[in-house]
Amino acid sequence: MSTQIPDPAMRATLLERARFNADGLITAVAQDHQTGEVLMLAWMNREALDETLATGRMCYFSRSRQKLWRKGETSGQVQTLIDARIDCDGDAVLLLVTQDGVACHTGRRSCFYTALRPEGAVIIAEPLVSPETLYGA
Amino acid sequence: MSTQIPDPAMRATLLERARFNADGLITAVAQDHQTGEVLMLAWMNREALDETLATGRMCYFSRSRQKLWRKGETSGQVQTLIDARIDCDGDAVLLLVTQDGVACHTGRRSCFYTALRPEGAVIIAEPLVSPETLYGA
Repeated sequence: MSTQIPDPAMRATLLERARFNADGLITAVAQDHQTGEVLMLAWMNREALDETLATGRMCYFSRSRQKLWRKGETSGQVQTLIDARIDCDGDAVLLLVTQDGVACHTGRRSCFYTALRPEGAVIIAEPLVSPETLYGA
Repeated sequence: MSTQIPDPAMRATLLERARFNADGLITAVAQDHQTGEVLMLAWMNREALDETLATGRMCYFSRSRQKLWRKGETSGQVQTLIDARIDCDGDAVLLLVTQDGVACHTGRRSCFYTALRPEGAVIIAEPLVSPETLYGA
């Protein structure tokens, strides 16, 4: 199951709802569509959001590398889009996805694995796969 | 049930994990801790995150008003913190909360009520309460 919007004109209409910031970016939250787990937070420029809607594969914009980042292109941990939602003021999108493997570069399912608690920072999830396996030694 | 971290020294230690951006802000995602629904995306400065951890009540930083925004102070729709998580690169926090009433200023439970679909933008949730009731006529 994957949502793709092949019609460029429809995508352009939908993209009019997005309010990109001064850097041309919108905040993107990826959520596992079955478990509800929030997997990661990243950024998209117009091109990344358009490509994501067109292909049904999550494409972000890497701020560190300043280029499109097709999730899984190196690690193989692809995210397939199930449903895209935009918030009331248009500066954030919520992407319900199917995550192949893990979302986090540390090999954990979610990037949000550190809880801030009265007793200190608690690691609440362990890696399911080693970063070396994901990215090579 | 509410998580509070009354010890200022512990909060300072935990806050060292946060990487605030050039505007002094970190991205904050609020998620319903029971249903998993992503309610809203907002921002926190150091003071807002510290207050949230200290009090167990969600406090954001309003970029439009440039001041602390204690969620529910006007609308009564308070968010109580259940667990705070920070992501692997420290520039986003995920807050699991109990939401009194609704999170969105439109009166909807979540701000992410517009789906971007092949047939167009689809409103997938209706207001549970009128904005007039929340904020006065």
